[in-house]
Amino acid sequence: MSINGFGHLFRVTTWGESHGPALGATVDGCPPGIPLDAEMIQTFLDRRKPGQNRYTTQRREADEVEILSGVFEGQTTGTPIQLMIRNTDQRSKDYGDIASKFRPGHADITYWQKYGIRDYRGGGRSSARETAARVAAGGVARAALSVLMPGLRISGYMTRMGVHATDPARHDAEEIARNPFWCPDPVAASEWEGYLDGLRKSGSSVGAVIEVTASGLPAGLGAPVYAKLDTDLAAGMMSINAVKGVEIGEGMAAATLTGEENADEITMGPDGPVFSSNHAGGILGGISTGQDVVVRFSVKPTSSILTPRRTVNIAGEETEIVTKGRHDPCVGIRAVPVGEAMMACILLDHLLLHRGQVGDGPRGHIG
Amino acid sequence: MSINGFGHLFRVTTWGESHGPALGATVDGCPPGIPLDAEMIQTFLDRRKPGQNRYTTQRREADEVEILSGVFEGQTTGTPIQLMIRNTDQRSKDYGDIASKFRPGHADITYWQKYGIRDYRGGGRSSARETAARVAAGGVARAALSVLMPGLRISGYMTRMGVHATDPARHDAEEIARNPFWCPDPVAASEWEGYLDGLRKSGSSVGAVIEVTASGLPAGLGAPVYAKLDTDLAAGMMSINAVKGVEIGEGMAAATLTGEENADEITMGPDGPVFSSNHAGGILGGISTGQDVVVRFSVKPTSSILTPRRTVNIAGEETEIVTKGRHDPCVGIRAVPVGEAMMACILLDHLLLHRGQVGDGPRGHIG
Amino acid sequence: MSINGFGHLFRVTTWGESHGPALGATVDGCPPGIPLDAEMIQTFLDRRKPGQNRYTTQRREADEVEILSGVFEGQTTGTPIQLMIRNTDQRSKDYGDIASKFRPGHADITYWQKYGIRDYRGGGRSSARETAARVAAGGVARAALSVLMPGLRISGYMTRMGVHATDPARHDAEEIARNPFWCPDPVAASEWEGYLDGLRKSGSSVGAVIEVTASGLPAGLGAPVYAKLDTDLAAGMMSINAVKGVEIGEGMAAATLTGEENADEITMGPDGPVFSSNHAGGILGGISTGQDVVVRFSVKPTSSILTPRRTVNIAGEETEIVTKGRHDPCVGIRAVPVGEAMMACILLDHLLLHRGQVGDGPRGHIG
Amino acid sequence: MSINGFGHLFRVTTWGESHGPALGATVDGCPPGIPLDAEMIQTFLDRRKPGQNRYTTQRREADEVEILSGVFEGQTTGTPIQLMIRNTDQRSKDYGDIASKFRPGHADITYWQKYGIRDYRGGGRSSARETAARVAAGGVARAALSVLMPGLRISGYMTRMGVHATDPARHDAEEIARNPFWCPDPVAASEWEGYLDGLRKSGSSVGAVIEVTASGLPAGLGAPVYAKLDTDLAAGMMSINAVKGVEIGEGMAAATLTGEENADEITMGPDGPVFSSNHAGGILGGISTGQDVVVRFSVKPTSSILTPRRTVNIAGEETEIVTKGRHDPCVGIRAVPVGEAMMACILLDHLLLHRGQVGDGPRGHIG
Repeated sequence: MSINGFGHLFRVTTWGESHGPALGATVDGCPPGIPLDAEMIQTFLDRRKPGQNRYTTQRREADEVEILSGVFEGQTTGTPIQLMIRNTDQRSKDYGDIASKFRPGHADITYWQKYGIRDYRGGGRSSARETAARVAAGGVARAALSVLMPGLRISGYMTRMGVHATDPARHDAEEIARNPFWCPDPVAASEWEGYLDGLRKSGSSVGAVIEVTASGLPAGLGAPVYAKLDTDLAAGMMSINAVKGVEIGEGMAAATLTGEENADEITMGPDGPVFSSNHAGGILGGISTGQDVVVRFSVKPTSSILTPRRTVNIAGEETEIVTKGRHDPCVGIRAVPVGEAMMACILLDHLLLHRGQVGDGPRGHIG
Repeated sequence: MSINGFGHLFRVTTWGESHGPALGATVDGCPPGIPLDAEMIQTFLDRRKPGQNRYTTQRREADEVEILSGVFEGQTTGTPIQLMIRNTDQRSKDYGDIASKFRPGHADITYWQKYGIRDYRGGGRSSARETAARVAAGGVARAALSVLMPGLRISGYMTRMGVHATDPARHDAEEIARNPFWCPDPVAASEWEGYLDGLRKSGSSVGAVIEVTASGLPAGLGAPVYAKLDTDLAAGMMSINAVKGVEIGEGMAAATLTGEENADEITMGPDGPVFSSNHAGGILGGISTGQDVVVRFSVKPTSSILTPRRTVNIAGEETEIVTKGRHDPCVGIRAVPVGEAMMACILLDHLLLHRGQVGDGPRGHIG
Repeated sequence: MSINGFGHLFRVTTWGESHGPALGATVDGCPPGIPLDAEMIQTFLDRRKPGQNRYTTQRREADEVEILSGVFEGQTTGTPIQLMIRNTDQRSKDYGDIASKFRPGHADITYWQKYGIRDYRGGGRSSARETAARVAAGGVARAALSVLMPGLRISGYMTRMGVHATDPARHDAEEIARNPFWCPDPVAASEWEGYLDGLRKSGSSVGAVIEVTASGLPAGLGAPVYAKLDTDLAAGMMSINAVKGVEIGEGMAAATLTGEENADEITMGPDGPVFSSNHAGGILGGISTGQDVVVRFSVKPTSSILTPRRTVNIAGEETEIVTKGRHDPCVGIRAVPVGEAMMACILLDHLLLHRGQVGDGPRGHIG
Repeated sequence: MSINGFGHLFRVTTWGESHGPALGATVDGCPPGIPLDAEMIQTFLDRRKPGQNRYTTQRREADEVEILSGVFEGQTTGTPIQLMIRNTDQRSKDYGDIASKFRPGHADITYWQKYGIRDYRGGGRSSARETAARVAAGGVARAALSVLMPGLRISGYMTRMGVHATDPARHDAEEIARNPFWCPDPVAASEWEGYLDGLRKSGSSVGAVIEVTASGLPAGLGAPVYAKLDTDLAAGMMSINAVKGVEIGEGMAAATLTGEENADEITMGPDGPVFSSNHAGGILGGISTGQDVVVRFSVKPTSSILTPRRTVNIAGEETEIVTKGRHDPCVGIRAVPVGEAMMACILLDHLLLHRGQVGDGPRGHIG
């Protein structure tokens, strides 16, 4: 019930504003005895860090994480892990105009309407900067998963930038880290470069679709009927800034299929049941099948753009707004490590939940 | 944390299996003093009831709800409301074959793998019959909303059946109740009739897209950053049987837009801010804007079909399965009232949550 | 967060009013594969049932429990278990006077002030009748514990009735079931008989102290620092009707001891550490030590008495009230099985929680 | 469900170890628009701070709180408030002996048995130092209560030190701040001085009873039947280090009373119902009556003493332990501000909960 947290047994509460002194995550419920240090978490934070190339905001943040509790002599102790990231680059003069005007497509207006007060500097709590805390928490989850679910591999990548989608036939896992877009398709990656340069120069922005795949997880994770694995993934991804849609497996396109087309037929392999396809995205009835879990989500374009938009101010006067300052032309790029972090946290949480309610591993044997 | 429940302050826990003695919902946190009786809930249950036309399962269930607690002299008392629906038509002989074989695309296999035991009769807990309990709980939520948010209107309808989508230009609210598909487009409705008859006769099935719209709600509902209104709607809709994707406003298509296209510009109307468009689906930063809240979700085709599919049994032997019995050729039809019920429960929950954390109504005035 | 429920992974939500159609418990999170039927639960309900001797209310209730879900072919399935008890003896004419007057020492006035509506029949939701649902849920917990913690033994008994306490030196476990007071001291039991007969005949009532002991549980249960085992036991016992104090081990008397007196010294036994004493009541730092867990709670005297008491009515007029009808002269008697049930539920819950967060069994070896 | 947190809508999660870099509290759910700065919180921390006189541990901690988030231009924003206190005096050499030996009466052994790893420095997470975080969170709660419940007054004091109790007839609210024991009875205060000097010099320790009273709160707070106001107070106080018993109003002594003696009779005063006495401690049926809420809890003597006690070490060898270093001869003294902080947090939480579920203020009018 903590509004700024998620998870059942592995519980992450994030805190902090874009331009406050610091932000971070309170991680409660990490199992004890897991090797952990700040460097392990930093690796993931560095993937999300802004200012690394011309396609992400030029705000310079060290994003250095400090572990304040819960780790002793290089291992987790089972007590809360406090992760703190100091904000260093807080050029608040950039944001003067948005103190009184509401950016169309932004949470400025709703935070004001809900709370009657808002930290307008850089979007305050609604800034995508909050996702740094998620990535840090995801680093803790990955450390635990590397011990508790050693075969697991989580991979995020971008499958669409604006009107340009990747071609699944050209999907190459090695390509993802080779371009600044986490794009798995080398042809698309080179196409996006020019496309995004154009948008960036014109002060515009564009949306994206991110896909996150987890492979090597056991069957049996997920707690029907309201803490299903897909339910928690849908909530987790939808809670990321600017996300407007979440799909599992076939997603929205499942509506277009017949029962014959959609059924993933089952045969027996040497290690148990094998599915002929994965329309289900690795989840049936809210429980993992052991196949790859496949989640996709859309990220809307950044609302901070250079083109003037009509809006109102707090006084109720009609006006225009142009958002200068340092912004991401495609904020979806930095959402990739965030989606991976959410996947890691949710899978660890469900592993612990399954272990608590049912015991270790899948219980019903086949064959 | 109760796995079979959802909600923060208005909390619904459902219970019951398809072929057990009864199913129902334990509703905790309904405000006191709300006029309520069984008839008010029955109205909504009757909309979801199977066997009403040739397009839904021919299982005959009275689906009569009994209120066992929480109501005194026609009003809620603030104590838990227990809603029970007896199962009457439990022809379990229809389901003999699925006791040992796993239907492809169904939760049979994952329930077995997770729990090592499953009530295979009619899908047990994973049956869409569970959604009757949601609709009953939604009836309680609607009763409370009619007092606490009197201008609210919730409307669900189907916008796609398989390859056939409705045309938004032909959207007619009056049409929805006139056809058996909750279809708002009279042309599509007539088209779907033949299409679904064909599928039904061949023992096939097809997916669907459902849209649920809520209008007349205040700005300010939603609790960032992990109990956002869209987060809770995504979880709520994804938890419905067979749902594979959830969208808010532009949904997945938001990825294709530029910042200019996606921004809902703001002007002043007589009663406050007015938005020029609703790409946001009524939610910014996880908080309602006061515009219509628009949610869409896809429902995959029923996995119970007459065409033989390859599968395995508990002994690990490869085999084929044909699912006879009484099934929905398009289970999405009956998901419409379920989506409405989830919307009602979640909006009431967020109204109470907002009232608790912030006080009554929006706080930040504009103008 | 559901207000009418408790537990983290083994979650019990009770519902129902004293004179409504039924009451019960929704039990979510019971592990699968546990042998369970109604008779196993009935055994515990029969221990709490009213009207069994002249010392408890003469209301006649069959208190027959019906399992509506979650059990298939004699075993739990891991899905919610709905337990329903129909109310049969609802002589509401007995309670006419309390519809408008508030009994001193009773929840009549606070339910009215909080909710503005109350089911006054038999105390409605605030009736001790609610505890039948707890005992039923405790029956489920005991069934699971008999599989998961086979050496566990839970024993409740009364150590004080009004001014008369038992003598610990005369504690005899065999005696507890031999008298109607669950009194472990045969001398006290015979003393209490006359004492309570006198109070009963004069229409008075008296308080009691109940002690519940659990032996045979492992070290390591309890989740510091806010879901400590003693924290959850304190909440669980305090939530029982009429309870005004809860003690662990030395309890309030711990305040009178010095550090030397209070320390339970440790030596090594054949199976691990052995404590020289148990001032701690089996819990250190909120975690079980493996010693007996010892909890005590006080139950105030029933507020329904024959002696006229000054009070007011809803109209704000001063008046007097005499509560006729069928009441317990010492409601503490029936609280004994309730305390045992709470102990069972909380221990099972902590076993599951420990298993989820830390893994099976204690982790740190000594020796 | 976050194990290191408490509260429903006003949710406090504490983190940090005795000798780690910092400790603190993540406060989620504080209403927006509340004036707050670090000084307001510091006032309460200074009351609990060690080393202020010869009766508390000589560890020197500045206990300076830093607000890292959730406050903007001197007001809360409704987003999480992160409170951090750096540990400055971490003389860990004092604690060398306890790295391998378990102090009798201390959580050393159970943390080891549960987690298989423990930060032994100063007790790690089980140190009373954790209560600094509670007091800081209590400062936030008090700031909110001063706006939302302006008439409220919370007062904590010690009513027993070892064998010496205060005399209620000599209770003087002015006296509490005049002596180092928060003792409301001037005669007892002077008696305790010599008593505790003797214990301190001999390296012993002693237990205490703390009473916390809240006056000026409305009727109607408390959410039956498992989030009752007394249930949450019992859990809250029992979760404080070294607490072994909790009482509301008459507490354990309620067991000795008859129904006539225990009933708080009701008459009408100018502002509504008036009770003739307060055996109930201000709570009936788990809901506040509007009278003073009275809670008492016992604190066991510190287990760190100079007298050798028999114990074992991790290797399973029998040995003796003497705890040198800086300890509180009566740790109950510093528990007084902690009890007040818990009361503040819980009352604010219940105010928000009541507002959310029922609306503002009591609903049922009398007269």
